[in-house]
Amino acid sequence: MKDITLGIDIGGTNTVFGAVDLEGKSYFEGRIPTQEYKSFSEFVSKIHESFERLVQNITFPHRFIGVGVGAPNGNFYTGEVNLAPNLPWKGRIEVAKEFSKVFALPVWVTNDAKAAAIGEMMFGAAKGMKNFIVITLGTGLGSGFVVNGDLIYGHDGFAGEFGHVIVHPDGRMCGCGRRGCLETYVSATGIKRTVYKLIADNLEPSSLRSVSFDHLSADMISKAALAGDPIAIQAFEYTGNILGSKLADAVAICSPEAIFLFGGLAKAGELIIDPVKKHMEENLLPIFRNKISILQSGIRGSNGAVLGAAALAWKQLGYSVTS
Amino acid sequence: MKDITLGIDIGGTNTVFGAVDLEGKSYFEGRIPTQEYKSFSEFVSKIHESFERLVQNITFPHRFIGVGVGAPNGNFYTGEVNLAPNLPWKGRIEVAKEFSKVFALPVWVTNDAKAAAIGEMMFGAAKGMKNFIVITLGTGLGSGFVVNGDLIYGHDGFAGEFGHVIVHPDGRMCGCGRRGCLETYVSATGIKRTVYKLIADNLEPSSLRSVSFDHLSADMISKAALAGDPIAIQAFEYTGNILGSKLADAVAICSPEAIFLFGGLAKAGELIIDPVKKHMEENLLPIFRNKISILQSGIRGSNGAVLGAAALAWKQLGYSVTS
Repeated sequence: MKDITLGIDIGGTNTVFGAVDLEGKSYFEGRIPTQEYKSFSEFVSKIHESFERLVQNITFPHRFIGVGVGAPNGNFYTGEVNLAPNLPWKGRIEVAKEFSKVFALPVWVTNDAKAAAIGEMMFGAAKGMKNFIVITLGTGLGSGFVVNGDLIYGHDGFAGEFGHVIVHPDGRMCGCGRRGCLETYVSATGIKRTVYKLIADNLEPSSLRSVSFDHLSADMISKAALAGDPIAIQAFEYTGNILGSKLADAVAICSPEAIFLFGGLAKAGELIIDPVKKHMEENLLPIFRNKISILQSGIRGSNGAVLGAAALAWKQLGYSVTS
Repeated sequence: MKDITLGIDIGGTNTVFGAVDLEGKSYFEGRIPTQEYKSFSEFVSKIHESFERLVQNITFPHRFIGVGVGAPNGNFYTGEVNLAPNLPWKGRIEVAKEFSKVFALPVWVTNDAKAAAIGEMMFGAAKGMKNFIVITLGTGLGSGFVVNGDLIYGHDGFAGEFGHVIVHPDGRMCGCGRRGCLETYVSATGIKRTVYKLIADNLEPSSLRSVSFDHLSADMISKAALAGDPIAIQAFEYTGNILGSKLADAVAICSPEAIFLFGGLAKAGELIIDPVKKHMEENLLPIFRNKISILQSGIRGSNGAVLGAAALAWKQLGYSVTS
């Protein structure tokens, strides 16, 4: 009888879920469009229905022992999602309660970046580490801080909002209503804004001059940088400078062993890691220099967020890291 | 038979030690000048000698069960102090080992700010809290971050260097060899530098114009501010603005329940707390607003550092917080 957990990643566009064992092996993957369900319980029923069909593919004796959910604004303490701007259901959603009803299993909820951090610890490159940081670079910047082997949830469950430390008090407008937050510079969207600023300020030729903001992507900026485009190269340098100096502050607080970059913009690899490392080192207190690795996430493939959500369930069920 | 721990606070000028029970009651206090002992083992012997004399004052049946030491650069993991600029012994000092030899008890070591945080949790105003920050405002700025009920030591024991997050990359020279560190603005020394900058930049009359930098103290600036001195009042506002905005960043990472100010400059009370709170709130992500208390340390009297060191021993011996 093999124990398995269900990981569910609720995204603004798609919701993906899968069955994951303690070694991080995934046995099926389901996917439904998030926006098509008027009520949250309708959405949960649809996932359950799809799950019941997919689970037929598992031919060996098994049992599901828990469910982990990663969702925007997901709160570990309350099991709820509250006021998530990219989800179709407004107000307070009782995520853990609703999934627990249909699956008859314990359910834990957290946000996607914290799930990524737990996934890194259980199944990725942070196995055996007790102190590390995961930075997710997608539309925004998410983060999961692990200290003493546990995630920092904070007093209210909302810790880890590193995307909203302030870079410039009068800087770029942020979706949170303030100005100058880190994620307005460092994220897939942030680097697009930087490309536009660099085009506005400079005269160098660039293939990116022919691309509208709506069509520009982090991936296009990576490709241009690899092809030697001066604007794209400067954009990575600018982004790495800001992230590196803010990570130096985070290191002063937490003294991690490693920092992992995860998500869309992290796929740029050395293009982003090299300037981040350079500028972090420049800004570190001497005692921390040349000690901290900056690495790409060790979670491969498209289902990283599902693995992270499943890892949350494994961790809460008391299974320790297999290092 | 009453269990007691010994708390030792090694300071640059004096070393203070005392016997503390689980309720935080202190039974004696010893004090020796730190700088008078050429070797560390001579220093340790002197403390032990003094301890043997003082312990006669305890007339009820008792036993000592552990020793906690707070020291500049004290490392919890290694039990050592390394390269502490204000101590007379150079290089690597095996603090835990040396004290353990003479007292024949388990000994734990950490730095003074982390000891203050544990003291606040065991005996002060943080009783029962699992997520809080202690900021010590003395010659420099020290910090202890508590998450999930435990101190953040980090991978190497050097976490909590909040005094060295960067305020301005080209800012004031810091003792660490860099520029613009938080403690160059926010500390007893930092506010003195601010008073000098304000006198340089402004023309308002001020009683502080007649005081040399060497004679100026945080206490004099407090008294001047209470008497309505415009330079002193601006100095607290400037200091509170910088600390408040950096605390907002720390809150985004850790989401604490409360932040405690401890040490010399914290004695200014509302003079410092009010501007810190105002500017922290202005810079907080909406989700954290009006949730986090900024308070003076609940540890009273001159022996706060000894209580903190003793609390470290109690905590490591497995005694939980009495709330």
